Amino acid sequence: MKKIGVLLSGCGVYDGVEIHEAVITLLALDRNGAEAVCMAPDIEQHHVVNHLNGEPSEEKRNVIVESARIARGNIKNVKDVNAIDIDGLILPGGSGAAKNLSNFALKGKEADINPDVAKIVRDMVDANKPVGAICISPAILCKILEDKNPEVTIGNDFGTIETIEEIGGIHVVCAVDQIHVDQANKLITTPAYMLGPGIKEVAKGIEKLVEAVLKYS
Amino acid sequence: MKKIGVLLSGCGVYDGVEIHEAVITLLALDRNGAEAVCMAPDIEQHHVVNHLNGEPSEEKRNVIVESARIARGNIKNVKDVNAIDIDGLILPGGSGAAKNLSNFALKGKEADINPDVAKIVRDMVDANKPVGAICISPAILCKILEDKNPEVTIGNDFGTIETIEEIGGIHVVCAVDQIHVDQANKLITTPAYMLGPGIKEVAKGIEKLVEAVLKYS
Repeated sequence: MKKIGVLLSGCGVYDGVEIHEAVITLLALDRNGAEAVCMAPDIEQHHVVNHLNGEPSEEKRNVIVESARIARGNIKNVKDVNAIDIDGLILPGGSGAAKNLSNFALKGKEADINPDVAKIVRDMVDANKPVGAICISPAILCKILEDKNPEVTIGNDFGTIETIEEIGGIHVVCAVDQIHVDQANKLITTPAYMLGPGIKEVAKGIEKLVEAVLKYS
Repeated sequence: MKKIGVLLSGCGVYDGVEIHEAVITLLALDRNGAEAVCMAPDIEQHHVVNHLNGEPSEEKRNVIVESARIARGNIKNVKDVNAIDIDGLILPGGSGAAKNLSNFALKGKEADINPDVAKIVRDMVDANKPVGAICISPAILCKILEDKNPEVTIGNDFGTIETIEEIGGIHVVCAVDQIHVDQANKLITTPAYMLGPGIKEVAKGIEKLVEAVLKYS
């Protein structure tokens, strides 16, 4: 049974992982006979957003503790996972990728990446193992792999595309129900909620991404 | 386009709605051409559980605010939804059904039900519209409908079955990938994570439940 890492970044689209994208990833992995290895960094969230009114709150929450809600408690600290332990890695999207796994939301092309996140992604690529990234997460991949001319999609958002290209990434426009594959680096990406419009379209792209990650693993 | 209410109870299996069950419900509704109308009560959670270590914490969280994470902000207060507005109603499971929508986890057959939750469920049944309930939620239905001999499944958990039968419900053992239909009351139930073992089996039962709710609506 193949083991595929699923790197979570909290629990909720505005301050953590996009929940639908994460659950659809877990479901597709199970349906394709793979074991999901959920992981997240043990760090404080950048902030907590009230998802009812969209406003930041004064609360403090921890990324692995909130991610554990999606993993039903079965989750590892990302720093304890090595590339040798898994056959592929998938980063669902959501603001958590740009606020917790990195500070891309604040610093764009100058973003800092959580060192444990950067290490597992880089180690996977160096080991020629596939990495899938959903929604905004491909931008984080580009920053981590800026010396490797990564080829990704985040849909068609002009501002993010510009930043990706400034970093040295190559952006390919892609429909929500499709994936883009960077054969050289074994990167598989899909726009998901960067494009929407709804959960069934997002699911189509993610299901193709999971199948491709398994195929290349 | 049919509108199906999805009654959430927080965000996380140990203190709110079971996230996988909720997302699979939303996905199946969209794939079957129905519109999901997410709703939750605007009340404080019974408690907050750290899902990494399983321990209750000192935090306070609100049920509709946390549920909004799963609904991506598109959620109504359950007290503002009337049976006339929707064609069916689904209650995913998770501890939130037994701790926030009711106090079934504490009081069993003597459980109190949140009055707005009891009203929407009762109004749906009185209007001959279908109600689906997943995992532990069928026990809550039984308490709300104790005068109607509701026939449900929660899988095969002996303690919960005993309580359901003491309330006046009729329990039918059911596999995780199957549903039970109470034709008289138009109740559709599936065991989901009351049985497990994993997300793909849970999804099979929930997909059948969603199709049945739409068929009876």
